[in-house]
Amino acid sequence: MNELSVNHLLGIKYLNQADIDLIFKTADHFKEVINRPIKKVPSLRDITIANLFFENSTRTRLSFELAEKRLSADVINFSASSSSVSKGETLIDTVNNILSMKVDMVVMRHPNPGAGIFLSKHVDASIINAGDGTHEHPTQALLDSYSIRERLGEVKGKKVVIVGDILHSRVALSNIFALKLQGAEVKVCGPKTLLPRYVESLGVGVETNLRKALEWCDVANMLRVQNERMEISYFPSTREYTQQFGVNKQLLDSLDKQIVIMHPGPINRGVEITSDVADSKQAIILDQVQNGVAIRMAVIYLLASKIKP
Amino acid sequence: MNELSVNHLLGIKYLNQADIDLIFKTADHFKEVINRPIKKVPSLRDITIANLFFENSTRTRLSFELAEKRLSADVINFSASSSSVSKGETLIDTVNNILSMKVDMVVMRHPNPGAGIFLSKHVDASIINAGDGTHEHPTQALLDSYSIRERLGEVKGKKVVIVGDILHSRVALSNIFALKLQGAEVKVCGPKTLLPRYVESLGVGVETNLRKALEWCDVANMLRVQNERMEISYFPSTREYTQQFGVNKQLLDSLDKQIVIMHPGPINRGVEITSDVADSKQAIILDQVQNGVAIRMAVIYLLASKIKP
Amino acid sequence: MNELSVNHLLGIKYLNQADIDLIFKTADHFKEVINRPIKKVPSLRDITIANLFFENSTRTRLSFELAEKRLSADVINFSASSSSVSKGETLIDTVNNILSMKVDMVVMRHPNPGAGIFLSKHVDASIINAGDGTHEHPTQALLDSYSIRERLGEVKGKKVVIVGDILHSRVALSNIFALKLQGAEVKVCGPKTLLPRYVESLGVGVETNLRKALEWCDVANMLRVQNERMEISYFPSTREYTQQFGVNKQLLDSLDKQIVIMHPGPINRGVEITSDVADSKQAIILDQVQNGVAIRMAVIYLLASKIKP
Repeated sequence: MNELSVNHLLGIKYLNQADIDLIFKTADHFKEVINRPIKKVPSLRDITIANLFFENSTRTRLSFELAEKRLSADVINFSASSSSVSKGETLIDTVNNILSMKVDMVVMRHPNPGAGIFLSKHVDASIINAGDGTHEHPTQALLDSYSIRERLGEVKGKKVVIVGDILHSRVALSNIFALKLQGAEVKVCGPKTLLPRYVESLGVGVETNLRKALEWCDVANMLRVQNERMEISYFPSTREYTQQFGVNKQLLDSLDKQIVIMHPGPINRGVEITSDVADSKQAIILDQVQNGVAIRMAVIYLLASKIKP
Repeated sequence: MNELSVNHLLGIKYLNQADIDLIFKTADHFKEVINRPIKKVPSLRDITIANLFFENSTRTRLSFELAEKRLSADVINFSASSSSVSKGETLIDTVNNILSMKVDMVVMRHPNPGAGIFLSKHVDASIINAGDGTHEHPTQALLDSYSIRERLGEVKGKKVVIVGDILHSRVALSNIFALKLQGAEVKVCGPKTLLPRYVESLGVGVETNLRKALEWCDVANMLRVQNERMEISYFPSTREYTQQFGVNKQLLDSLDKQIVIMHPGPINRGVEITSDVADSKQAIILDQVQNGVAIRMAVIYLLASKIKP
Repeated sequence: MNELSVNHLLGIKYLNQADIDLIFKTADHFKEVINRPIKKVPSLRDITIANLFFENSTRTRLSFELAEKRLSADVINFSASSSSVSKGETLIDTVNNILSMKVDMVVMRHPNPGAGIFLSKHVDASIINAGDGTHEHPTQALLDSYSIRERLGEVKGKKVVIVGDILHSRVALSNIFALKLQGAEVKVCGPKTLLPRYVESLGVGVETNLRKALEWCDVANMLRVQNERMEISYFPSTREYTQQFGVNKQLLDSLDKQIVIMHPGPINRGVEITSDVADSKQAIILDQVQNGVAIRMAVIYLLASKIKP
């Protein structure tokens, strides 16, 4: 199979194991490309991609933009602040207008869960979900699994703990789907108020004691404390959070093994992890960023090959 | 004649019939180009174009940017929010600075009527007016006429009614000039407070009853209700506007012919037109958007060929 | 020597005479390029450059962006308003993230003096300082000297007065370093409250009388009055400033020679200089802007050639 089973990347939950294998194999190729002196391929010279960001983002937008340019696609950027959306236009109208200009693919970040799914049913273009509210962020989960595979050889059978605000995190949900699909064991760890009840129904263990979680795992994915998504009254203070769920070097060194530390960024140094942890050899945070470009090139390339000419 | 009579596109009122014919013929070619798998031509690889938007715009800016990129021009974008304008620099100084960097063409949207005309007299570059206050929006009128010609075979002799706030609309004024020049019959329809007195002197009929206007016309161009340009006390409420000047399917179906429905976007669904009208086969709203790219490619291409090397 | 002595352009104070000669010789070549019909060279097709602007800027950002595109580099733009910086990420983390996406060169404007120097010690990319607070703005000083050389044949031995707010001006400081290095004589002129005490230790003369300064000099570089950097209580009002330190045509014509007038822009017409001075043949303000693109192409090209493949 040299083709994805889907025409859009809306969430990990719509992918199968073969899709992920194909994306990773393709990303291996593009990772070589971006480490060459000439980091570009002419593959998508006939494709126009619109990046629609209805929420602010730096790293994700830059990563997609670089991926698109290195595939030689034509790129147009659209952000909500300068948009017709504030003039009362519907999302479908906004996107249909852009597609009428002969755009082939839409990369969209949107504050509403399900925005990409809704859109994919109403417009005629390939949609990539770059984060939809608290729902999914599939390219982040793909690059996370790809980075685990790169460091540990494979994802299958690995023990991964996701630490932090699981309730509001699209990174957590997409990672859970991706890791379970590939046969990893997954636990979540965080304050009880930020662990959703449904998580056990996904086959995910729950651990509220950080030390126990770390003793169990091969990989700890330390989520960012997103103050903007918190309901303040339910949450411990940042200080309390750090005391209970922050990782420092002393804690890491007290374990009887070298676990891998991940973080989707941007890091609050001293909150989720201390600086010496972020900069240690156990952390693969910058590998994640680099792999993000390769993964996004792979996803865009594979979806583009499914567009009817 | 394979050349425009003008060196700038400042308004429809400076064009003649041969100019419009040449633009449409050139746009026919580019419309074919943008419907090919490879949507680009290398024509303007030696041209640098600056898009100067002193007013927010999504669709017009994206349409120009795509047109420029598909002609292989180099493009730089400049928006007022990040500009020296707020530091007290004059418009001529801002533009002369940009031109000193060896920019060949300026696409400008500006809140002041006449800004493009003023600029064309003081700087040495080809200027395209992408909307100057309540004055003109010539590429919009060109794409509107081009879309009528595409649907109905020609513009000459067709009956077109423009519905809405004629007083504040640069789209209306440019359309009136373009349609009259090509020999169409034009009426305007809207609340009396939003119909300017001078309109009859342009050879345009006035009709305050929407049903009568629709019974008369072949094409209805439904202007957007632009709350931002309204003097509230003069205007009916949005609800009253919709009751008197909104088009719904029932009204359309009660006519004894199939008229063409146009809208410059963004649509307020349920205000100027209902959703079933916007999505009906009589509506050519998305054709207008697609034709916008072809028309802008044609205008840029033709003006670029007049730049002295 | 066909190589710069530095791997970054952090400030003029890190350059030597041979560096400046090499930059100017290279800029001569690129100035020819940007005056050709095809203004591009394929030199840097393998380089990705990130423009990181943590402070608003129009002309400097556009000038760098055009320089980069005309060298065929891939360009990504990042501005603080849409950035992770507001989410509490450190500067080093932000930049390391961008570099992990395989970016080779960073052009940075930052409000903090020394930001570029700090960064160059902690990240693995070539850094170009595009203005760091009140510290340095080296490409501006290079283009200023280059413009003097173009108009007067050489910089050595020329008498240059810098007029205005020397205390807060990175343009002034970089110009002083560049002019002294090349053997020009330099004086500063302005209100006493805006002349720093250390300036004489740099071998620079001080003159608080504008007429005397102009009678002495070959070139007057008229700094912009930057209201945003002023501590109001120390400064004369704008009206008083103009009366004492503004240049008008009458004053210019009363000198017994034709001095060259420079301005880094954006001009406050009627404040630092009157309109007839800005538009006179003695002013080389737009030449400075044009030379800015050539100088930036030269700097980027020379630094890129030092990046290890």
